[in-house]
Formats: sequence, structure tokens, C-alpha cells
Amino acid sequence: MLSALDLARRIEAGELTPATVIERCAEAIAAREHEVGAFASLDLDAARERAALAGAVLASKPLRGLPVGMKDIFDTADLPTEYGSPIYAGHRPKADAALVSLVRRTGGIILGKTVTTEFASLQPGATRNPRNLAHTPGGSSSGSAAAVAAGMLPVACGSQTGGSVIRPAAFCGVAGFKPSFRLLPTVGMKCCSWHLDTAGLFAAGVADVAFAAAAVSGRELRVDQSEPAPPRIALARTHLWSEASEAMQGALERTARRAEAAGAAVKDLLLPPRLEEAFNAHAIIQGYEVYRALAYEYDHHREQLGPLLRERIGQGAAISADDYDAARRTSRRARQLFADLAADFDVILMPSAAGAAPPGLTSTGVPTFNKLWTLLGNPCVNVPGLADAAGLPLGMQIVGRFGRDRAALEAAMFLEGVISGPST
Amino acid sequence: MLSALDLARRIEAGELTPATVIERCAEAIAAREHEVGAFASLDLDAARERAALAGAVLASKPLRGLPVGMKDIFDTADLPTEYGSPIYAGHRPKADAALVSLVRRTGGIILGKTVTTEFASLQPGATRNPRNLAHTPGGSSSGSAAAVAAGMLPVACGSQTGGSVIRPAAFCGVAGFKPSFRLLPTVGMKCCSWHLDTAGLFAAGVADVAFAAAAVSGRELRVDQSEPAPPRIALARTHLWSEASEAMQGALERTARRAEAAGAAVKDLLLPPRLEEAFNAHAIIQGYEVYRALAYEYDHHREQLGPLLRERIGQGAAISADDYDAARRTSRRARQLFADLAADFDVILMPSAAGAAPPGLTSTGVPTFNKLWTLLGNPCVNVPGLADAAGLPLGMQIVGRFGRDRAALEAAMFLEGVISGPST
Repeated sequence: MLSALDLARRIEAGELTPATVIERCAEAIAAREHEVGAFASLDLDAARERAALAGAVLASKPLRGLPVGMKDIFDTADLPTEYGSPIYAGHRPKADAALVSLVRRTGGIILGKTVTTEFASLQPGATRNPRNLAHTPGGSSSGSAAAVAAGMLPVACGSQTGGSVIRPAAFCGVAGFKPSFRLLPTVGMKCCSWHLDTAGLFAAGVADVAFAAAAVSGRELRVDQSEPAPPRIALARTHLWSEASEAMQGALERTARRAEAAGAAVKDLLLPPRLEEAFNAHAIIQGYEVYRALAYEYDHHREQLGPLLRERIGQGAAISADDYDAARRTSRRARQLFADLAADFDVILMPSAAGAAPPGLTSTGVPTFNKLWTLLGNPCVNVPGLADAAGLPLGMQIVGRFGRDRAALEAAMFLEGVISGPST
Repeated sequence: MLSALDLARRIEAGELTPATVIERCAEAIAAREHEVGAFASLDLDAARERAALAGAVLASKPLRGLPVGMKDIFDTADLPTEYGSPIYAGHRPKADAALVSLVRRTGGIILGKTVTTEFASLQPGATRNPRNLAHTPGGSSSGSAAAVAAGMLPVACGSQTGGSVIRPAAFCGVAGFKPSFRLLPTVGMKCCSWHLDTAGLFAAGVADVAFAAAAVSGRELRVDQSEPAPPRIALARTHLWSEASEAMQGALERTARRAEAAGAAVKDLLLPPRLEEAFNAHAIIQGYEVYRALAYEYDHHREQLGPLLRERIGQGAAISADDYDAARRTSRRARQLFADLAADFDVILMPSAAGAAPPGLTSTGVPTFNKLWTLLGNPCVNVPGLADAAGLPLGMQIVGRFGRDRAALEAAMFLEGVISGPST
């Protein structure tokens, strides 16, 4: 994989240029893209031209001229934007999404658009998992996670409405960061659910994704400049624990013990039933909103929607405003409840997904361990580094407090160090 | 003016058809549009065709086939969408905004797009105030308010980021309804500020706008089916009171006394200083977000932006993430403070604007009396019916509790009755 932080440092030191980094990506793309299928569109020549014309200026900006991939639900005026749907075949928006502009403002070079499931929903795209091509890369940000995992990009943007950043990051074995709700703008990103859609980032490791997040957001989110202090960790098995694979359960328990040995305070956390109930609110909010957010597509091009999405939208049509309002109240109360609960710890540690990437390409897996945090808006980080017996990645999830994104990234960085260190 | 509720009832009773209502609009448009300039685009023939083909089906739906105008910041696939900016001259989006789809799903016929200020911001469009052509119609939903006031449309959609629904409604003498934040979807509406942009509605009177809101949202918001009970009113002069004109101050005081005489409990409310401070948070949030929401336009077409907007975006660039976060915390605390405060009353009564529409067309007036409620997300209604000595409308503003939109509309309906009744 390409470490964004390492590349940025070497560009800063004059050892590399944005143009040479693009060529590294181009080599990896030539070697892997035919089998991984991470890109919905790609314009290497435009990127080369940009690096040739403005490389020195870009190298002085926060992102140092690094190549970036944008999930194909972010509008781009100079690249096709198809949202993973035949309804938008060849679509070229009039303007860039806000996050595309922020990437460019801060010195990123957009190399291409990465594959998304249909409207960032359930129907998989053509991407395969670079760790094992017979397995799903996860979704909906399939291409972004796979491109970083295959070393084709140092940074990619994605989005999460259920578990669409953390799950593919876990399945592909890269760092994924779903920031606090609305830390990154979603303007110009195809909307499925306005209370849930959250823009996020992928990079090789935690320090890399924190570097990219700091650069794009202009916030002090970097975690590479000092040793992270051992965090107070709450090990949350939740009522979903039984849905985690044996390998995942074991990996999480071992990681917790090693974190403890490395100085972290680890204690078990039983989520209060009212917080667990909030899981159900997610589906209600998502259903009610997708019936409205994708109204045009459902009303005018229903036959071009995949069966899974068509069914979900149809179910959303039946949700009453009263049930929707109740679900929003439930999520507001759950946010407050979590804030009260979190006085005793810095972060939660739990699985990023039920296990390793399942075999097959007809489903991207389930967001069981992610939905609650998307609903509540907490920052989440997938910490890579562990694998099951077959060598497939097992992702550890760090969940932080709302607005404490830096603390979540620091705890993730600590955990990554624990995982990669010698086992005790 | 055309009463949406009256027209809907007569369509329901078989006395009118959607086609005949379109012709009434067409007559008013022929008589007034050349001097009012409310429409950015208009397609009467398409509307006539829709009414001819589907009039009977539409008449059975909640909006009864009524003609509706959409502010030209809502995307439409079959009408140009220019956001009031030359950057988007001739732009035709690929899909309809969610609210456009909801209007159509619930039986509305979209007659045209109404004039918006540039990106729903400060630079006025070409619309004049139908009550006096030498005066501003207010903004940013200038065309929607003016079209309803001139009897050219029974219903129009708009949006408010500062005071862009309530102010033009007040200046043009129509009912304006800014619902609780996100009651109506903003998907596919050009975004200026994701924490503030709120979709709203215009109609002739309070019962009309409540009827339209109920139809489009599928919520029980109608207020015409029973006599509204006298509300508990808090008369809020706020620290901005001195900015209200003498005519406005007098009109508000008289209205409060008449409401009291009609059975309402009226008491003075001094807004706590911390709530008044939240006014300042609005500008910080708006500035920080517009620099990102309109990033593409600012970075690629700066010379085509109006000077006022260019300056506002430039100021937004200087706002730090820390200041932005602090403003968001201030607004969260203010929401809680307001909720605590509001145990003692049903609604606030205050001016919709500083006074009547100012003369001239180079400014749309100021959102002084609206910004706090947009920030907090409370429902607001402009109650029409009063005028100054020159016959220009003076709008009374009802502010309700978040999520209690029905109660706000009922109180507005009560107040409208008080205003139109015999003076005591």
C-alpha cells in the first residue's frame, strides 16, 4: 500500500514530486485494476497534466499534490458521475461536490472516480477484494477501499449511511475514517438519507487517514506528531455480539488484552437497552428518507433500479411521519444517553464488521456493527492489521465521542501500534 | 389572490377542474407578470397538457391538481434551473429535487420556476413587489412571494437560510411558512448552508399555506377544519426591537392587545441574553458553510458571482473550524434554552421584518427578525393582513416550538382571524 503520510513527507522533503507519485499509482493500476475493478472512471492524463502544470504549488499545500480517488457519488464536472446506476450513464454534472473542491483547494489531484454500489445502497458494483478476488470488498464505498488496499491510491473519499466506510475498510484491510456527522461536507454528494449520509476517508494506516482528514478539513486531526497516550477503552460486545464470527470475537478479545498490557484502561461496557433500541431507529429514518431522496429515480426510472433498492424504497413509502418523528426522537435521546455514558471512557472498541469479508460478490455484507454510530453521528475508525486464519483482514472499530475526532484517531493509532507490535 | 384551500375544495366538489385553475393563473400572469417579473421560467403549455391528460387523477390527490411554483433553486429536469446566477444560464439538471417530486406525487402541477436572488443570497433578481412596484418584494424567495401576492399562483415553494421565506411573505402580504428544520426535504435544492437552508411555502392565507404543507408533507397540518383555540402568546420585543419601524411596533402592540381581547393569554417575554447571543452564531455558521457549499462556483467562476456574495464567501474563508464549532455549540445550547423557556407559552409573536418593504430594488431588506429562528430550526409563520399608512403590508411573525408546526399554524390562523376581524 501507499502511505499518504510517507509520500507527503517525501514530497515535502523534495525527494518525490506529485508527478512521480502519480506514476506509482499508474503502475499499480496497470498491475491490479484489471482484476480489482476499483475505478468507475479514471483520467491519468489529466492528473499528469495537473501535476506538470502545478506540481510545485500543490506540493506546498496540505495534501502535497497527492492523488485522491472520489467515490462515484460525489459530483465532478470533469469526470463522469454515474452513482452506480444506469439511470445516470454518462452523466456529467455541472459542478463539483464541495468535498471535491476541498480536496483540490488543499492540494489533492483527483485521479478518478471509484466504484460505488448503486446509489451507495445495496446492489454491488464490479469491484473485487484485492486481498482475495473471490470475496466482496464490502460496500458501498467498494472502489475507494479496494483502490487503497491494492496500492493504486494513497487516499480515497467515500461515504457511510449504514456502514459503508468502516465495513469496506475492514474487509479490504485499510484504515477507514467516518468522522463526526457533517465534519466533511456532503453538498453535491448524491443523497440517500439526509440524517445519515456521512462523508469519510480511506488510507493505508491510521496516521495516513488522519493526515488526509486534517488536510481536507483544515482541522488539527494529525496523530503522527506525538506518541498517542493509552486511552480509556470500553469494550462493547453489545447485543449483537453473537453475530460476530468466532475469529472476530477472539481477535477483539486478544486486542483488548494487548491494549491493556500496553497501558490502556480497558473495561467491559454493557450498552443500555435504550441505546440498543436505537438500532431500530436507523432503518426507519433511512427508509423514510430514501423514499423522498430518490423520489425522482423511483417515480421516473423505477425499472432501472436494482431489485434490492426498489424494495427498500417501496418499504420506505409505508413509513408514517409519526414513526419517523419517533425514530428521530429516539436517536436524539440516544445521543444524550451516549454522551452521559461516555464520561467514563475515551472510546469504544468493537468489531468493524461481523467477521472477515464473506466469499462471493453478490452482497457487500451487513452494517450490523456500524448503523448505530452512523445514526448517532459519532466518529468511527477502522483499525487494520489483524487477519483470520485464511489471511483475510479483521477490522477493529474505534468509536469516539461526537466532535472528539482527534481523540478517536489517537486511540485508533494507539491500537494500531498494539496490533502491529510483538504479541505478548 | 387565489386561495389554495378554496380552489381545492371547489375542485373536490367538481365545480372546478385543474385545467380551469391553470387558466385563472394564466390570466393573472398575462395581466401582471410583465410588471412583477416573478417567474424565472414558465411552461403553461406543459401544465395544460398535464391537466388535460391527468386532471381527474390529480384532482383526487391531496394537492387537487393545483398549480405550484418552485423557487429556481430547486432542480427540475424539465425546466431550466439557474439558481439566479449567470454561471448556470440554461442549466437543465438531470433529476428533480425531492420537493419537486413530492409536489408532483401529491397532485401538484408545476407551472414554472420563480425568481430567486443569486444562489438564494443577497443579490436581487428582477422581481418587483406587486403591492407597489417601486418596492422590493423581499428575498431570497422573491418570485414565489410575489407570484402568490399577484394572484398568479395559489401555492409556491421557497427556502430560508436567513429570512428568505418570512421576509418576502411579509413584504408581499401573503402567508409564508418556514417549517421546522428538515420537515420538507432539501435534497436537490442548491445548498448554501447545510445547517440553515430550510424549504418553505407561500400561499394567500394561513389556512392555504397549512393546506399546502399538509398535502406535500403528508402530515396533519391543516388548520381549516376547526376553530383554533386561543394560544398562549409570548410577545417578544427582543434586543432588536429598536430596529423595528414605528409603524411595525405599533401594529404589533395593537395586534397583541386584540389577540388578548379575543381570548389569547399574552405576556411579555424577555429573551435571555444567551439566546440573543445566538444571533451571532448564525453569521458564523452561514459564512463557514457557504465558503464550502459554493466552493466550485467561488473557485472556478468567481468573476460571475455578484459582489455581495463574493464578499460573503471571502469572509467565510477566514472563519476557523474552532469558531464554527463554538457557533454550533451555541446554537445547540440555545435550542435547549428555548425549549426550557417555551414551557410557559405556545408561540412567540414578533415582527416578521423591521417594517414594510423598503423602496428600491437594489436590496431585498434584512433578515434581522428571522435569523435566530432559522438557526434554531423553529417553525415560523408570516401572518398577513396588516398594512402601514401607505398601504404596504406589515407582517406579524408567529414562532412555534420545534416539531410543533401544527400548533404554530393554528396560532397563526387565530391571529389572522383577530387581524381581519372588527377592531375593538
